[in-house]
Amino acid sequence: MFDLIAFDADDTLWHNETIYVATQARLRQMLAAYASADEVDRVLHETEMHNLELFGYGIKGFTLSMIETALAVSEGRVSAREIGQIVDLARDMLRTEVRLLDHVEETLARLAQDYPLMIVTKGDLRDQERRIAQSGMAHWFTHVQIVSEKSQEVYAALLARYGVPPARFLMVGNSLRSDVLPVVALGGHAVYIPYPLTWAHETIAPEMAGDHRYHTLEHIGLLPALIEKLAAEG
Amino acid sequence: MFDLIAFDADDTLWHNETIYVATQARLRQMLAAYASADEVDRVLHETEMHNLELFGYGIKGFTLSMIETALAVSEGRVSAREIGQIVDLARDMLRTEVRLLDHVEETLARLAQDYPLMIVTKGDLRDQERRIAQSGMAHWFTHVQIVSEKSQEVYAALLARYGVPPARFLMVGNSLRSDVLPVVALGGHAVYIPYPLTWAHETIAPEMAGDHRYHTLEHIGLLPALIEKLAAEG
Repeated sequence: MFDLIAFDADDTLWHNETIYVATQARLRQMLAAYASADEVDRVLHETEMHNLELFGYGIKGFTLSMIETALAVSEGRVSAREIGQIVDLARDMLRTEVRLLDHVEETLARLAQDYPLMIVTKGDLRDQERRIAQSGMAHWFTHVQIVSEKSQEVYAALLARYGVPPARFLMVGNSLRSDVLPVVALGGHAVYIPYPLTWAHETIAPEMAGDHRYHTLEHIGLLPALIEKLAAEG
Repeated sequence: MFDLIAFDADDTLWHNETIYVATQARLRQMLAAYASADEVDRVLHETEMHNLELFGYGIKGFTLSMIETALAVSEGRVSAREIGQIVDLARDMLRTEVRLLDHVEETLARLAQDYPLMIVTKGDLRDQERRIAQSGMAHWFTHVQIVSEKSQEVYAALLARYGVPPARFLMVGNSLRSDVLPVVALGGHAVYIPYPLTWAHETIAPEMAGDHRYHTLEHIGLLPALIEKLAAEG
């Protein structure tokens, strides 16, 4: 049924958004003298969206956006010491230990018996490599691809590189925007496993996803049974 | 003679270090009220080396190091406005137009007739992809690999992936540390084309390179003739 099964990493295999949410809470606290929590959140989101094209995904770009947010909401009154603390927040994020989601290890072990597995993730190159190494899961994967964007074109190029027809490709992830819709649009299969927290940028209104067919699972532990069912039908 | 010829990108195909050098000059000027040019250079270099393991290569990590340098040399007196200017330096760097080195286009066009060509470069993923696209040279390359480090292990993994024996691989670049020595140590061939400016981190004392055999060329335009000569001998 499938020649290749690929997984998103952040918030699909291990917790990630919790790290950003916790950091953003510390930023709000740090800037409480200058602006309300809502104001910090709003300016940070705008700054991130403004910077995304140039800075790309990942902790370093996020940190530059946090610094610009501090400058903006404080109207230039933020202190050098506080800027230094924001760079330290980046260090803390980069050093945060990888925490696997429930059922990840057993699911990968089970599926790796029958399928080549791949990671497709975006973010800072070195940081993503560190997470993959630290997760202890690297040995289950035949391919690891760290990409700057997860668009339909990027998936098409990956499948062409490995000679996998879209119809025999399954992508598993927590983002409709990055993991599900571009793959389904290409004629591939996708499994959507929502994470309790999703970054606003990755959120897509349900109606935008309306025409596309994909499977939704509550957690990754349910994936082997779904794949068996699909294989039996297909 | 060769199954694959690979090129470093920054300062091998196009100018890069000039962008860093120009930015560092602007930083020195910006911080002149707080510290001498030598002091800024020294602290920036130390900060970069300290941050390299965690932040990796590329403009975003360099920018976080510039910000920490400003905080350190000013002993916290640097203004919010000046920090904002440093983030703007990052934007300027990322937006700098790609300038090819002399002879690059004719050399790639000539070699692509006979060999599959590859780019192997390190840095920020999105920034490197942007440069490759903007250079107009992407169509000459069969493979593009953006890596977080150019170690012997990374080259070995790349060659294994493409099924190329080291003895039939040639790497071309401006860094002894990243482009030449790890490839030669693996049993591959390397051509060293020094760039007038080389980042201190990439510099290796000549004696450290003593046991290794590689070719040195004055500019990339001389590469096709060298390869013809090697093919005739080999």
